[in-house]
Amino acid sequence: MPIITSFQNPHVKNAVRLRDGRQREKQGRILIDGSREISRAIAAGVRLVEAFVCEPLCRSEQSRRLLSSLPETTAELLEVTEPVFEKLAFGQRTEGVLAVAETPRPTLESLAPKLTGKSPLIAVLEAVEKPGNLGAVLRTADAAGLSAVILADLRTDLYNPNAIRASLGTIFTVPVCEATSSDVLDWLREHNFSIAAARVDGAVPYTSVDYRHPTAIVLGSEATGLSSIWTGPSITAVRLPMLGIADSLNVSVTGAVLFYEALRQRTA
Amino acid sequence: MPIITSFQNPHVKNAVRLRDGRQREKQGRILIDGSREISRAIAAGVRLVEAFVCEPLCRSEQSRRLLSSLPETTAELLEVTEPVFEKLAFGQRTEGVLAVAETPRPTLESLAPKLTGKSPLIAVLEAVEKPGNLGAVLRTADAAGLSAVILADLRTDLYNPNAIRASLGTIFTVPVCEATSSDVLDWLREHNFSIAAARVDGAVPYTSVDYRHPTAIVLGSEATGLSSIWTGPSITAVRLPMLGIADSLNVSVTGAVLFYEALRQRTA
Repeated sequence: MPIITSFQNPHVKNAVRLRDGRQREKQGRILIDGSREISRAIAAGVRLVEAFVCEPLCRSEQSRRLLSSLPETTAELLEVTEPVFEKLAFGQRTEGVLAVAETPRPTLESLAPKLTGKSPLIAVLEAVEKPGNLGAVLRTADAAGLSAVILADLRTDLYNPNAIRASLGTIFTVPVCEATSSDVLDWLREHNFSIAAARVDGAVPYTSVDYRHPTAIVLGSEATGLSSIWTGPSITAVRLPMLGIADSLNVSVTGAVLFYEALRQRTA
Repeated sequence: MPIITSFQNPHVKNAVRLRDGRQREKQGRILIDGSREISRAIAAGVRLVEAFVCEPLCRSEQSRRLLSSLPETTAELLEVTEPVFEKLAFGQRTEGVLAVAETPRPTLESLAPKLTGKSPLIAVLEAVEKPGNLGAVLRTADAAGLSAVILADLRTDLYNPNAIRASLGTIFTVPVCEATSSDVLDWLREHNFSIAAARVDGAVPYTSVDYRHPTAIVLGSEATGLSSIWTGPSITAVRLPMLGIADSLNVSVTGAVLFYEALRQRTA
């Protein structure tokens, strides 16, 4: 195929625009940087539209392996020069492959079939603003074996490049979906989840809760905490001990402590 | 006092240079951004040399409170114009006060007297490169009530502005020190610590370890893991369950799970 040398090439111009969240929304497409992340997206069934390839930059074994598997995907392969690739690539990550994919649109309804067979453990993240935090929680949820992560009233876009990167690509493999807090709460009640909402002033120490039943662990943003919808008789407000001078923990750290306590109880 | 209006003012020029690690080393001084961080440093006895103040930017209550307490510190107060302050300020943090302080030089020997009165729980961080990770571990160690954090073979400078920021200022309040891995290991043995070293391939599930004795939890960098010095009959290699597709956790996340498991056992 002819190598694309021009920054004015329409494929290149459209892909560069996808660094902007409004353009991702408008085009219904996302960018995936990094060989590992692209490989995980392919394995998870994400539909690739285009793959920009700069062969001289494909030096790692992972990049070479990805390169050889790309012809079997739905992606149109577009070879580009190094200068064009560098314009396309995110930050310093120039692993030689960049993918454009259709935005996955998972819904609450699509989650239920993925939760059969065991007592599900779910995380709900409310009103997260920072894509890096979103990605970090997904990475931790993957490690702890969570059944799904639900983004409630999300204040960034799910497939922001920083979220994909911080998640190490687990954003494509951990079942995720977006919904309003109100819809999430209804859905959890309909499916008989116990709800543990993490609050700095929670009444119950987090270690006193039994997480072995189907459980949703609800986490708020650092800036604002959880909204008032996550209160009420059927919701347990749990707290982590805070023994120092700082008054909050990073959301992925709070999540990790809760996820692993649940796992500890479930495997004890 | 006269307001400093010039970027060429020697105080301003020296402070700007302190954004560079080699200059911090050379001058024996550090920069502290943020009213909260400066307040915590003062409370912890860190010796301020200068405080640059831009009154119109001191809008938060915390900034106003800090401003009124500065005359009681060792800091020389230097009023600057907004443009000068913006040149001095780190990133977008323009809270109106920026401090220059003498670099604290805590040593292993200085730690021992701070560990009396209870069974100490310590974190050892080996070969950390990213100041943000260092700060995040300190923030978590503060919350979990750790007795100290020891930086072994540190590959960044302890008081990098990003480390201070990510720690929310707890870098000044949690007892910390720097030493070689070899010296740290000797010190831990001399003081009869149990040693739990986190490894992806650790032989013992982290929940099977008894953390109620004096314990050091040893964490490696994500890139390289722990060096071989942290192996041997008196060191327990512990692992966290990794149930997903990613093969590592962020070091502050691993730390959080271990610190809070230790705390759970100690308060059960």
